[in-house]
Amino acid sequence: MQTRPQHLIRLEDLEPGQLEDILDLTQRLKRRPGRNELAGRSVGLLFFKGSLRTRASFEVAVHQLGGHTVELTASSDFWQLEERQGTVMDGAAPEHVRDAAAVLSRYFDALAIRPSPAGGSWSVDRNDAQIRAWAQHASVPVVNMESALWHPLQALADLYTMREALGELAGRRLALTWVHSPEPVSCSAAHSLLHAALGAGMEVRIANPPSYSLDEDVQSEAHEIAQRAGTNLHCGQSQAEAVDGADVIYARSWNSLEHYGNPTLAASHLGRLRDWVVDEQLLSCGRGARLMHAMPVRRNLEVSDGVLDGPASLVYQQAENRLHTQKALLALLAGQESGRA
Amino acid sequence: MQTRPQHLIRLEDLEPGQLEDILDLTQRLKRRPGRNELAGRSVGLLFFKGSLRTRASFEVAVHQLGGHTVELTASSDFWQLEERQGTVMDGAAPEHVRDAAAVLSRYFDALAIRPSPAGGSWSVDRNDAQIRAWAQHASVPVVNMESALWHPLQALADLYTMREALGELAGRRLALTWVHSPEPVSCSAAHSLLHAALGAGMEVRIANPPSYSLDEDVQSEAHEIAQRAGTNLHCGQSQAEAVDGADVIYARSWNSLEHYGNPTLAASHLGRLRDWVVDEQLLSCGRGARLMHAMPVRRNLEVSDGVLDGPASLVYQQAENRLHTQKALLALLAGQESGRA
Amino acid sequence: MQTRPQHLIRLEDLEPGQLEDILDLTQRLKRRPGRNELAGRSVGLLFFKGSLRTRASFEVAVHQLGGHTVELTASSDFWQLEERQGTVMDGAAPEHVRDAAAVLSRYFDALAIRPSPAGGSWSVDRNDAQIRAWAQHASVPVVNMESALWHPLQALADLYTMREALGELAGRRLALTWVHSPEPVSCSAAHSLLHAALGAGMEVRIANPPSYSLDEDVQSEAHEIAQRAGTNLHCGQSQAEAVDGADVIYARSWNSLEHYGNPTLAASHLGRLRDWVVDEQLLSCGRGARLMHAMPVRRNLEVSDGVLDGPASLVYQQAENRLHTQKALLALLAGQESGRA
Repeated sequence: MQTRPQHLIRLEDLEPGQLEDILDLTQRLKRRPGRNELAGRSVGLLFFKGSLRTRASFEVAVHQLGGHTVELTASSDFWQLEERQGTVMDGAAPEHVRDAAAVLSRYFDALAIRPSPAGGSWSVDRNDAQIRAWAQHASVPVVNMESALWHPLQALADLYTMREALGELAGRRLALTWVHSPEPVSCSAAHSLLHAALGAGMEVRIANPPSYSLDEDVQSEAHEIAQRAGTNLHCGQSQAEAVDGADVIYARSWNSLEHYGNPTLAASHLGRLRDWVVDEQLLSCGRGARLMHAMPVRRNLEVSDGVLDGPASLVYQQAENRLHTQKALLALLAGQESGRA
Repeated sequence: MQTRPQHLIRLEDLEPGQLEDILDLTQRLKRRPGRNELAGRSVGLLFFKGSLRTRASFEVAVHQLGGHTVELTASSDFWQLEERQGTVMDGAAPEHVRDAAAVLSRYFDALAIRPSPAGGSWSVDRNDAQIRAWAQHASVPVVNMESALWHPLQALADLYTMREALGELAGRRLALTWVHSPEPVSCSAAHSLLHAALGAGMEVRIANPPSYSLDEDVQSEAHEIAQRAGTNLHCGQSQAEAVDGADVIYARSWNSLEHYGNPTLAASHLGRLRDWVVDEQLLSCGRGARLMHAMPVRRNLEVSDGVLDGPASLVYQQAENRLHTQKALLALLAGQESGRA
Repeated sequence: MQTRPQHLIRLEDLEPGQLEDILDLTQRLKRRPGRNELAGRSVGLLFFKGSLRTRASFEVAVHQLGGHTVELTASSDFWQLEERQGTVMDGAAPEHVRDAAAVLSRYFDALAIRPSPAGGSWSVDRNDAQIRAWAQHASVPVVNMESALWHPLQALADLYTMREALGELAGRRLALTWVHSPEPVSCSAAHSLLHAALGAGMEVRIANPPSYSLDEDVQSEAHEIAQRAGTNLHCGQSQAEAVDGADVIYARSWNSLEHYGNPTLAASHLGRLRDWVVDEQLLSCGRGARLMHAMPVRRNLEVSDGVLDGPASLVYQQAENRLHTQKALLALLAGQESGRA
């Protein structure tokens, strides 16, 4: 009987001990990069949606561990895939994800996937059907490189960066503040960070304008995590409330889930929210607060030049840690696979 | 005086002994993947047309043998190439294939090429002018990753898979049946399989609707191969006739060569052929028949879920063997080149 | 205090001793390709504009030295980048080059960049703002894979090829002649070659039609280089004047800087210049002259088949030397970095 491979769709797919192992291993790998855990292994990277940081850091992570990557881009290398079971495939999709996943599992030792949510309805997209179909049908580990709901690789880097900057995280205070951008991005990084920070015992305060609350189920689960960890979560605060006494200010511009699939309405609301920025004045309300951002960042709109380029900014260290945490994750997965074999 | 490099445009470019060597080596490489035959070698992959299985399996094959790949895509990395000799190049093409092939031969140890036939006229496209121009001008081996006429890499995997499943192939019976799809693909895989199976001594029965015969010259040559091998080829049968007593049912939806370059006519014919499917009932007419398909496969249109996911299906094994047979081919070519040097 | 990394935006960014070192090392690497100077190193290749020769030769160069490449293409992998300082980023660009360069410097050991000049105004494009912004903000070496003004990698190969063919270059005569093409390319290769050849003590004669002079500042600087090197530069000659007694005829079709950004005017001028070609007759006016061209070349329009395929042609050797000179450059940069660390 085949064991189910260890997928990473959301951070909670890791056992708590595994998460600790990854963070510990990251520290060792950051000091001594040269190891060979992926010698002879190949990782397939499937981008249904473009990427800069994730693509570059993930490929370099595999290479530094001695492995190979093959990068497959939806637009040029493959095609629309059918996800529904039992359907007569006489539509646009010439291949079923069941078959693509089974075949690529024969070539690759792991598959890293960035799906492209349809963007029409949040109640549909929040199911992450595309990446879940890959995980269901692949016989090798599937790593989520950002879906509609989760961005576990970003959260790993965020968690490690906060530890690096603050040491023990329990009792520390994280202000997660929405910021203005003409093109807000997915809630995924905010969702994954929220659960990760609460799980580490941080107090989290979220600041966002009306209509910009995070996913309700993600919030409910976050409250349960907070309770188990003996800490607190406050949602829907003003920036001033959230930032007061914060150790870390995490800026992120995410889509309104209320206006999801309605770009006209979304744009008209956005226009009135240009004062949602992190600048020197806001930063000074924290407790020696550090600035984090998952990038790309629109300067002087999301965060001011002064904050981004000042001593409080952790953004480049945070981006660099994408590389190191991903190496640790890959080394863990490679070890797991060896253990299973 | 320079020896002509060993190209693989069609399977017949291999000596019979080489074909045997590749199939034997495949068996060894499938058991022990880690060898280093391509250490320090670079293979250029040129895609004038997209690909999933071929691209992924070919890159991994090179990597597992210790070599490097560079993937060049027509749309972003290069341009239209002139193929005619002696022409004044004042048209759209800024470079001659003669020069591109000569230059890339200085960088790469082999070139794998997927051309993009124009699709206007079968009597033109069947000449495979594009890949033959590359072979003419390259000073390193050129491997055909599927042209209008031939798909030798698929045939290698098909042959190996049938051997794996059936043992000695002489006297075994292959039913090659056309199946319905709204978007039939090239005849190339069927052509290469036909010659390969007859060459191995299999009896081949081809089922196809009127207007869907394979290329006439390919069929004539197939009859000669059958005669030399002491076996039989039957063309233009019904599915029931072809499948009766078959050891392998190979499903493939190929273009009508009669309607080639006439999409309207082709589509109107296709609409009347939706009963050309491989399902459980058809499968049961074979002699414990196994199902093969080169993929991508439209489920419940070309082949039913029940057959694809049942015990008779070899499709994932067949796809996996693309990797192993390509590794054996590359190892053979690398050895040849060393011998020449 | 951090030392500025060694960028290569133009050839003059190299110390004269370094240029000699690269040419010497090229000779050694061409004989014995297998070294491991880039083991464990990753090079990021950013293409804002497509490429065949540069992409293939640069990737193979890195691979042959034991390093890894990640190829990032503007169209699919990243986005428009803001270059202006201090701006409020509410336009199309979601990221500042400052941030992209800083982050990629954390992942890669060097960045090779092919920018895409806007093409509207030569006085703007000649500033090479895009690649200069990368160089300003990156903390690893930035290598120019052809900007509006310079193409140092081509000039390295050109210089090495002339040395290989002619031995000592001082006193030799180079005829750089404009040739007709319906789609002339950037002046960059001509600019870099001009300075390189004069710096090596060659006499240079440039033939071009009216309105096709090279950049004025590049020419002024070229005259200074000629004076320092004790040699001569003649501009704006006829093909016959330039080629008379030449050791090397270098054909290149470059854009008119007078018509820059005015395609209609440019096309109407071009139509009258079809006699600007290098053919057997012109070749015979040289002093046993060899033919060079940076490719792609339009046969029988820029250069005749007879010259390209005849014994005087160095074009394939020149293209191959892109690989070897780039390897030498990369080995030098890797050594520098080790020295700094």
